[in-house]
Formats: sequence, structure tokens, C-alpha cells
Amino acid sequence: MAASSSFTILSHPKNSLLIPTTTAASSRVGALLHSRQRVTSRAATRAVRGARVGVVRATAVESLEKAETADEVVEKSVNTIRFLAIDAVEKANSGHPGLPMGCAPMGHILYDEVMRYNPKNPYWFNRDRFVLSAGHGCMLQYALLHLAGYDSVLEDDLKSFRQWGSRSPGHPENFETPGIEVTTGPLGQGIANAVGLALAEKHLAARFNKPDAEVVDHYTYCILGDGCQMEGISQEACSLAGHWGLGKLIALYDDNHISIDGDTAIAFTENVDQRFEALGWHVIWVKNGNTGYDEIRAAIKEAKSVKDKPTLIKVTTTIGFGSPNKANSYSVHGSALGAKEVDATRQNLGWPYEPFHVPEDVKKHWSRHTAEGASLEADWNAKFAEYEKKYPEEAAELKSIITGEFPAGWEKALPTYTPESPGDATRNLSQTNLNALAKVIPGLVGGSADLASSNMTLLKMFGDFQKDTPEERNIRFGVREHGMGAICNGIALHSPGFVPYCATFFVFTDYMRGAIRISALSEAGVIYVMTHDSIGLGEDGPTHQPIEHLASFRAMPNIFMLRPADGNETAGSYKVAVQNRKTPSILALSRQKLPHLPGTSIEGVEKGGYTITDNSSGNKPDVILIGTGSELEIAAKAGDELRKEGKTVRVVSFVSWELFDLQSDEYKESVLPEGVTARVSIEAASTFGWGKIVGSKGKAIGIDKFGASAPAGKIYKEYGITVEAVIEAAKSVM
Amino acid sequence: MAASSSFTILSHPKNSLLIPTTTAASSRVGALLHSRQRVTSRAATRAVRGARVGVVRATAVESLEKAETADEVVEKSVNTIRFLAIDAVEKANSGHPGLPMGCAPMGHILYDEVMRYNPKNPYWFNRDRFVLSAGHGCMLQYALLHLAGYDSVLEDDLKSFRQWGSRSPGHPENFETPGIEVTTGPLGQGIANAVGLALAEKHLAARFNKPDAEVVDHYTYCILGDGCQMEGISQEACSLAGHWGLGKLIALYDDNHISIDGDTAIAFTENVDQRFEALGWHVIWVKNGNTGYDEIRAAIKEAKSVKDKPTLIKVTTTIGFGSPNKANSYSVHGSALGAKEVDATRQNLGWPYEPFHVPEDVKKHWSRHTAEGASLEADWNAKFAEYEKKYPEEAAELKSIITGEFPAGWEKALPTYTPESPGDATRNLSQTNLNALAKVIPGLVGGSADLASSNMTLLKMFGDFQKDTPEERNIRFGVREHGMGAICNGIALHSPGFVPYCATFFVFTDYMRGAIRISALSEAGVIYVMTHDSIGLGEDGPTHQPIEHLASFRAMPNIFMLRPADGNETAGSYKVAVQNRKTPSILALSRQKLPHLPGTSIEGVEKGGYTITDNSSGNKPDVILIGTGSELEIAAKAGDELRKEGKTVRVVSFVSWELFDLQSDEYKESVLPEGVTARVSIEAASTFGWGKIVGSKGKAIGIDKFGASAPAGKIYKEYGITVEAVIEAAKSVM
Repeated sequence: MAASSSFTILSHPKNSLLIPTTTAASSRVGALLHSRQRVTSRAATRAVRGARVGVVRATAVESLEKAETADEVVEKSVNTIRFLAIDAVEKANSGHPGLPMGCAPMGHILYDEVMRYNPKNPYWFNRDRFVLSAGHGCMLQYALLHLAGYDSVLEDDLKSFRQWGSRSPGHPENFETPGIEVTTGPLGQGIANAVGLALAEKHLAARFNKPDAEVVDHYTYCILGDGCQMEGISQEACSLAGHWGLGKLIALYDDNHISIDGDTAIAFTENVDQRFEALGWHVIWVKNGNTGYDEIRAAIKEAKSVKDKPTLIKVTTTIGFGSPNKANSYSVHGSALGAKEVDATRQNLGWPYEPFHVPEDVKKHWSRHTAEGASLEADWNAKFAEYEKKYPEEAAELKSIITGEFPAGWEKALPTYTPESPGDATRNLSQTNLNALAKVIPGLVGGSADLASSNMTLLKMFGDFQKDTPEERNIRFGVREHGMGAICNGIALHSPGFVPYCATFFVFTDYMRGAIRISALSEAGVIYVMTHDSIGLGEDGPTHQPIEHLASFRAMPNIFMLRPADGNETAGSYKVAVQNRKTPSILALSRQKLPHLPGTSIEGVEKGGYTITDNSSGNKPDVILIGTGSELEIAAKAGDELRKEGKTVRVVSFVSWELFDLQSDEYKESVLPEGVTARVSIEAASTFGWGKIVGSKGKAIGIDKFGASAPAGKIYKEYGITVEAVIEAAKSVM
Repeated sequence: MAASSSFTILSHPKNSLLIPTTTAASSRVGALLHSRQRVTSRAATRAVRGARVGVVRATAVESLEKAETADEVVEKSVNTIRFLAIDAVEKANSGHPGLPMGCAPMGHILYDEVMRYNPKNPYWFNRDRFVLSAGHGCMLQYALLHLAGYDSVLEDDLKSFRQWGSRSPGHPENFETPGIEVTTGPLGQGIANAVGLALAEKHLAARFNKPDAEVVDHYTYCILGDGCQMEGISQEACSLAGHWGLGKLIALYDDNHISIDGDTAIAFTENVDQRFEALGWHVIWVKNGNTGYDEIRAAIKEAKSVKDKPTLIKVTTTIGFGSPNKANSYSVHGSALGAKEVDATRQNLGWPYEPFHVPEDVKKHWSRHTAEGASLEADWNAKFAEYEKKYPEEAAELKSIITGEFPAGWEKALPTYTPESPGDATRNLSQTNLNALAKVIPGLVGGSADLASSNMTLLKMFGDFQKDTPEERNIRFGVREHGMGAICNGIALHSPGFVPYCATFFVFTDYMRGAIRISALSEAGVIYVMTHDSIGLGEDGPTHQPIEHLASFRAMPNIFMLRPADGNETAGSYKVAVQNRKTPSILALSRQKLPHLPGTSIEGVEKGGYTITDNSSGNKPDVILIGTGSELEIAAKAGDELRKEGKTVRVVSFVSWELFDLQSDEYKESVLPEGVTARVSIEAASTFGWGKIVGSKGKAIGIDKFGASAPAGKIYKEYGITVEAVIEAAKSVM
């Protein structure tokens, strides 16, 4: 493949040395084009490429010098995108045609002229990432993936837009449609994900690239709308992007002045440009996003030339561009145009084709991406093979991050404890686990929302990921929980071996629940390190004391809510969390010191619920006492007391309801036999949901009101979360 | 009381007419000082007041001309505030001394020189509002309330800071401590509450003030810190504050460069001033917030002179000012100083007093606020009495908002339906209710987060609350759910008769859960109008389909989670929501059309769970079918089918679990008799929690995974939320 070898030339440093005379000639262009340091050699290879390879090839690989495709084909391609969106929404009679119609030009330029990807392997590591933060406009991306040759979006998929079982759901879903990087729709999540993707790239590039081998080198593009801009999560993430100087993040803001309620002027009159400048972004305004192709191209070129700042390109567009009667109005935002207006739009844009038709010249134009994408990947593979030879250690680490395969035996790094080990808060034990794991899991990175010293999340052997130290692994999120969660989703979905963790007080999951839900839905294995998990935090009072949070996450699909009781259970929780890359985990951890209990184990945690002590036989204890987290100690003590009185007592740790649900009926019966209805649960949280576990004859001890400000021990006593309460309840149900 | 009569002069228009000659002399000062139109007459009265009343009086009422208290007393008062905070935190060995030490100067100036309040009636309507958004620094406010003479914070309260049963909890709680306006601590909530308070004032002033009677006229002050600035919620709320031009909102930003993780530079390097300018705020920088009293005074004066924009005063302070070894470090943020450093600080600031001592001259200085506050309120009462005479209709409306007493019989405005009424989506029925209520509840104001036409929340007889039309009652929040919720908390807590409602898709409660929890905790009776409440929304797919949300709110204390099934139940839900001013309500409403079912009623809703149809006798049906919202229809249809087969079936609507829990045991037994274990529930949501209702022998039909993108009917069928499934389950449990 000629294209392949040309890219080898492009990326191989020795070639640049072969052609010193061309360097000077193109260095000015090169200086504008590249984000990493080796401008001269790159510029040189570009000159070579231009001379040897020819027009189409150059456009695909690095096309910004000049739009070398004929203007006509571009225009036709843009209208193809528009009508694929119009037709799909029309057929579904549901969806959002307005954004794709307005953003088709920037979409075309990104996917046809700018981005590097391999449509036949949407998971190629070094691809440019694209995020449609304004996810409701997903037909834009489906149309682009279709034209680019992704097998995930065939004509039938376009025709089954928003239908049962299709790969083209109503918002972009990474788990349904290869080529979609992250799941968007809830506004603002996507731009925050994009910050995470760009962070991941910057981190890996700094950590693994060598002067002679740039194995990590891609951009992150994002289209976001007015709605994304209004959401606080985007402010949080964009403030961090500016702080971190994520120069390879390029966000195109679809400035169309229309949201669902009409003109954005009714609620959104801030100066977005000025705000982004305040956040440390480079800001460019494309005044004519509807037909100003060269303006868009120039803006992206300029954005790439700014290497120390992320760029916001404000692209002023007309929502529903081309629709004679509905453009520039909210009516085109979220509804099908209707047959009459579809016809009028076809007339208006001179589009004589049947629905879903892709003209041959457009097809042909886009067809090159398949070969080129293969070539890009092959070249990268060759480059990586060379890297692996020269830097086997680094390559092994990077490979683990790329593939998600962890070093064999990694779980042996997890600490274990005996009842004799000195007691400790599970938040401290969590830090021990994190630091142990950081040595064996190359992709473990994370941090806290300004509570590192309370959440105990610092990796002691590493420094801070910052603008000028991006190779480090401690991330400082500031007090930005929602942005933090979404950034971690971006990191997790950048590469399967990333294991991002983030932390705050458990109660403040309320601030980031939008992002946590997207972790669960989009199968992003983020670890949520949530400390101060009950009234046990004491004096900070009810604003800081979670009550309903355990229940609220137990009800959420595809997430493990883990509440470990001690050292072994904290280690077990980390084992589960690290192992399950497609299910996020929340670890609820204590502020207060806890003892290591007899009978707890990593294996037990993996079953979700298990017996820690039992003096009965024949699976028929007089009573079963069930606890989680800091209250397992209380259950255990109550068990001891009752046994002194001659009772047979089983004490069960119920560390994760979801994991227990996954066990066999036999196993469940062995822990909670149907015949034993004398059950008491204790948890310093809402009793909501416990009814199912303790049954109608059992008792659930918990807290069904808000907490209070006082020393922790006092609150436990006043709220009746005590050994005495368990004993009393046990006696009442036996 | 001389002070009292001087204020009468100040506020009574005829006096200004009596003294025309003084007007010109002070009009320039007046122009700078006052935010409303009557500058001339006000300036005139000020001149009179200055001549007649004397120094102390003038300071209290309108003090910005000059700080007329001796510098020494101010300094001493500021140090009193610092040491009350230091001593209280030290005694509790828990708390945050750093902020009060740094913010004592601005705190002193606000409470002693600027704000108008009555310490003996913290609920006086026309008081200036103060919000400590950086709630962890609450000892600042407790110290100020104590000095100002509030009975809620006596010396004993300071000494029992953060202890069980005290009125000085670890973060400010309006429900514990009169004088605290809102509950803060979770960062960013407070500044957003302040936006709500300022909105409330601007709305009421525009709606009720007359050229000859300004009965609504107060400022809203807020102190916020770096943490608040980082939170997205503050960006959302502040963007709206700028958009609305809330000129009487004055936010003092404690710019101390320290957060829990250390120097804010590790995560927060944006240009805050520039950002606020971009948001349409007036921005002032006080460079020396530690000792620059006159700078602070001048800034507040300038802020008051800017009437069309909110003002951010960036006050650069030293956290822990005065502590020789801990100031300007994170160690003073959230821990007691320790005995040694307390001593060193006493030395350093020259403070010879015992812990908790308030020097006599400081006491004396502050003592005037009691008389002055009484006078302010008395004057206002007189003014309002006059207003009531002249404008009885407006006065009645305003009174309803001030007192929270609604017009007798207001609930008769709620619509009722029969099974013959045309079916409709509950979101549409909700709009009918809102529009009916708007006519009888003067304090009903609200809107949607850019989904007014989907949430159906527009009050048709009113326009939009906007900068230049603040008397209107439809609020356009833009896509800012979290800010919206917190703003509504501010409105609700401004005056008991405000009934704010806000709206988005139910799934996006995830974005605003932090604010919803504060509604519940702080007893703010906000109505959350949450539409598109299940997979019934169809094509938008799983990102937009709530699953776990009902359960997550059922687990939250002090909130009514209501899921009405039809017209009568929607009306009943509104009755509950409006009536309960200290418990917020969430209404989960359907996108899809639903029939009006036989047996539903407003009275039924008030009981939370009730029988809608039953063909059994003796409280012994063969089976009980339980549904909520859109699935009650399915339960009812299944009941009809089973009855055709000769079964006795009770169909129960379980519209609100919390309300059902409040009923007597007898009532509960009459609906769900213990003897009938054949129970089937159906709800298009997580089954989490239903175990307690249906019991171990019953069946809960629901959805324990994420939704899907397809037409609603198709998803219902594929997910087994069908009449057939209910019949099958019923047969299996009978």
C-alpha cells in the first residue's frame, strides 16, 4: 500500500534527516500545524509527502494546508449529511434535525479533512477522538460514521434510527455503536468527557513518548451547543481544561442562538467568548458556520497551532439550515420537519434524491477513508513495534493501558489483615490499597475534588498531573464533583486499561450523579472513592451526612455499591472495582477508625454478602444479624453478646447487594436461608430497600431522617445505631 | 424612640416634600447610594436625619457615607468575631476557624454598618438577607448574630458549637437557628440561594411597590469562597443573576487562595473577575480585605450604586488572619488551631481576654441594633399599614406571600375529572393545575430548565420574569438544573407564601440532586415538576429514561415523591405539594397520554396509597394489584381481566409512599391487609424497595436495567410492563 509507506515516511524520524533542504521551505506552515515539539522534522516530511503521494492522500492525513477536494463535492457531502439526518428523523418521526443541518459543514470538515481514524477498527488506539456533546444531534454523527465507512452505521441503521434493537439510538451510545466514543445526551457531559479524553492523551504522551518515538499523538474534538454551555458541569470541566493547558482539545461551539424554549436570549446572555478567555482558552469566532468552509478550516488550523491552551471555536450557525420555513427556530430543534417541509428543504437546497440516498461522487469521495484508515493504523502498529523493541518496559505499561490487560497476579498487591492488625478508618485503608495498586496497574490515575487529605487519595510515589507535569498521576480536580466524574468517564473510555478513580464525601455524590449514571450506562469502570459515608462523620452535620445515598445507588443499574467494613473488605472492594472494567464501583468509606473483624475476606466481598461468623449448625441459626461497613462491627458485637446468652447467631456482611444478587440461589440460601425469618439488619442509613432482605418478620435498624451535628459517637447513640438496639431487635424477632 | 421616628421620616414621602431646600445639597451622595428611583426624596431625608438624629443612628440605618464608629471599636469588634470563632472551634475541637478570621472585617461591616435587620424578629419581611455560601465558616455568622443581639445565638450556643442539640450546628441551618436564611455547607448552594432571594425581592418590588409606597426594598448579601466559585452550580446561578440584572445582589468573594488541598493554584487558575464580567456582573476588587475597612465600605457603596447589575466584590483576605504560624495555609481551614496556636494568636492580635469574652465597649457598640431593628420593623409596619389602606388588593396578595396564608378555599381551584373526561398526559394536566393555582396562590412562580414546552410549565396569563419585566411570573432558567433548584430554594425561603416550582425531565433530577436534598433538609417547599418520568418517553433512549429515580427519592427524608396516574391524582398531588410548605414535593409526570381512571381522587392522593376499585368483600381480595402513575392503568386493566375470570381483585394506587407511611395502622390495614399476601406491583422503574410492599410472597414488576431507544409502546412490551405480565404474576401468587 503506497499510502501506508508514505505514512511510514511521515512518522519515521530518519526520513526527515534525509531531506534537509525542504525543511526551511515549509517550516512556517509546519509551525502552525503541529502540536508537539518536532515541528521541523514533521514539516519536512509533509513536504516529502506532498511531493510523492498526491492530492487525496495528503488531504486525509493532514489536510489543513488547503482544501484539496473540489468545492462541489464538499457542498454535496454536506448536503448528504443534512438529508441523511432529515430523512432518518422523518422516518422515525422523532429526533433532532436542526443541529445536524446546521453543523453539517463542521462535521464534514472534521471527519473528511481533519480527523485521523480507521473506520474498520473504531478502537484503534491512536485515533483522534470526537465527542458530540450536543448528543441530541446524533444523526450528524451517524451520517458521518456512515459516510466514513464504519460498519456500525449501515444504511439500514440510518433507516432504523431510534427503533428497537437498532445501532442508531436516540442519543449517541458508545456501548451500542462502535465509533461513538462516549455516551452523550444529558447536556454538558460530552464536553467534560472530551476534557477527560484530552487529559488521557496528554498524560500518556508525556509519560510514554520518546524523542524518537511519538506513539501517543491525537486530538480530541468536540461539538457542543448552547445547552452544554449553560450547564455548570461544562464550566467545571472547561475551567480545568484551561488550567491544565490541554492544547490538543478543540471544541467547536455550535452557536445557533436557539434552544428548546426559543431564542437563547431569554436565559443566556453571558459573553461566552470572554468567559472562555477567562478560563485560559484560546477563542476563535467563525462567523459563518453555514457555508464558510474555509473559515472553519482556518480556525481548526489556528487551534492546532496553539499548543498550550485548549481552543474554543465559536461557530455561528443557523439551526435547521436549509429549511425555508423552520430554520432558525426552536421548531426544528427537536421534531421531524414534516413531509411538506422536507420537500421544501429539498427544493431549497437543490436536492433531487430519494430519502437516504448518498450520491455516487460523495460515496467515492469518502471511500478513501477505509484504505487510509487501515494505513494509519498499520503505520502506527509498525511504529509501536519499534517502540516496543527499544523501550520494552514502557511499552508493556502502555500496552496494558491500551488493551486493558493487567499484569498477571496484580491482585496479589492487595493488602490483607487479621483481627490483630491495628484498626483504621476504611478511608485510610483505601489509600493503602490505591498506593499498592498504583504499582501494578499502570492505568490507575485519579484524585479528589479538593479533599485529597480527607478522602486519602494521594498516590504517594507520584506528583500532580499539571500543565507542565502531565506525566504524573495525581489529579487535582478542585471543588468540581460533576466535572470530575465526567472527566473520569472520558479517561475510562479513552483506553480499556485506564482505571480512573475520583473522590469526595459520599454525600456529594449528589453533585455528580449525572456523571455517575453515565458511568453505569456507558460501562465506564470508574472507581468512586466516597469517604465520610454516614453520620459517623460527626460534627459537620446533616448537610454532610449521607442517609439515602446507599439506597439510591443500590437502585441504579450496572453499578457496584460497596460498603466495606474493614481492611480485608476494603481490599476486596478494590479487587471488584479494578476487575470490573465495564461496571463502575462506588466505595463508601468511613471517616472513623474501625477494627478488623474476624471472618472478613476478599473472597467474601466478591460474593457481595457472606457469613463472617456463625455458631449454628445445619444452616439454622436462631437469628441472622446483617451489617455493612462501619455497622458490621456493631452486628458482630451484638452477635457475641447473644451467643453468650446461648443463642446461635449468624453474622453476615452485606457489603454489596448487587454482587450478592449475582450469586446462585444455592449460595444465597446458604447465607440467608428461607427458613430463618429472624433477621436484623443494621446500617447507619435509610432502611429503604432492607425490607426485602430482612423480610416481613425481620427488623431493619437504620436512619430514616436527616442526621445531626455532634460528635459521631453521640449521634450513633441518639439515633439508636447501637449494639443494644441490635440485641433488642434480635430478641423481638427470634 | 427617637430612632424610630427618624426612620418614619426617612420612609414617609411627605417629609421629603417638607424640606426641599436640603435636597440639592445632598443629591449627589444620594445618587450614589440608592438603588430605587426616589433618589431625591431619600437623599433629602438623609440630610434631615443627619441633622436631627446623630451619629450612631445614622450608622445603623444607612451608614455608607462614612464609618462613623471609632476605628478602635471596629478593630476590637472584628477581633471579637475572630476569637469567638477561634474559641468555639477550639472548644468543639472541630470546625473551620480560617474563614471567620479572614472574613471578620467584611462580616463586621455588613452586620454592623450596612445591613438592615431586626435581631428580635429574624423573620421581619423587609430585612436584608445574608447568605454565607462558604457555610463551613459558620462561626463567622454565629458570632455576628450573637453580637447583633439575636436570641438564637447566646453565649451558651457559642460554647456548644457543633454539639448535640445546640443551635449552632457545624454548618448554617435555617431550621435550627433563626437568623440563618438558608442552609449552606455543600459549596455553591448558598450563592445560588442568594440569587433566588434577590430574584424574589426584585419580583416583589416590581409587582407590589408603588411610587408612593416602597414596601419591598432590601438587599441580598452573600459571602462565597474559592470552593463556591469552582462549583458549576455557582456559574449557573451567577449567569442567570447577570442575565436578570439583579442589582441588589452583592456577593463578597473571599479570595484567600487556600482550599482544603492547599493553594488554589493547583486547580483553580481561571480569571474570576473576567468571568464575572462576562456574566454581566459589576466587579470590584478589594485588595486588602484584612484591614482595609474603608476599602470594603467603599466597595459596598459602589456596589449599591450599580443598580442594573449584581456586583461581585473580590475581597482578598488571608485565611486564618492573625494566627502567626497557620495563617495563609490549609491547616487553618478545617481544624481547630490548637491551644498553643490559640495563645500565639491572642498574643499576636493583642487579645488579653478569656475565651468567649465580648469586651464591654464592643457589646455596647452592638447593643443599639436591638432598638434600631425594632424601629426599622415598626416603621415598615406603619408603611405597610398605609399601603394596605391605599392598595388593599395588592396588600392582600403581598400579605399572603409574606405570611404563607393562602386565600381560603384555594384548593377549590384544582380541577377534577371523571373517567369520561378526555385522556391526557399528566404533564399536560399538570399545566392545567399550575394555571389554575396561579390565579389563587399569589406566590406561585416558576419555570423550566429550557423545557417549558415539554414540561408544560408556562403560566399562560403571565409573561416572563426578565430584567425589565421582573413583575412577571414565568422564570426561564435555561439549561441549568442545579442552579434552578437552588434558586427555587432561595425563593421558597425568602417568604413563607412563595410557592416556587421548577421543571425538567425526571431523569435530570440527577443534575440537581444537591439542591433537591437541601430543599428537603431546609424545609423549602419547592415543587419539582418532573416530566417524561419513565421509558414512556420513548425514542430519546436510556440517557433520558429514569429507572432508579423514584426509589432514590423515596429513600430521601422529608420529601414527597408523587407519581399521579391521571387528572384527579395530578390535582391531588398539587394539593399536597402546595399545602406542605415545609416539605418539597416531586411530581413524576408522564409524557404519554393516560386515561382518567375510575376511583381516583384528590382525597386518595392525600393518603398516599388507596383502593381505586375492588370487587371483594371483607377486606379479603384474592389479589391486590398495585400501580403508580402510568402503570396504574395497566394494573386496572389487569384487574378487569381477572375479575372477568371470577377473581376478586383490589386495585391500589400507590401514588406516594411517604404519605401512605404517615397514615394510621388501621388505614394501612384497610388498603393492604396483612392477611392478603397475593400482591403484584407494577411500575416502569426499578423494583428496589417494592419488596416491603408486596412482601416475600408477592411479585414486583419493574425494570432493573437501563431503558432503550424506541417508540414507547414497543419498549413497554419488550420490557414486560404489560397487562399480560400483571395477570400472569397475579395468577402465580394467588
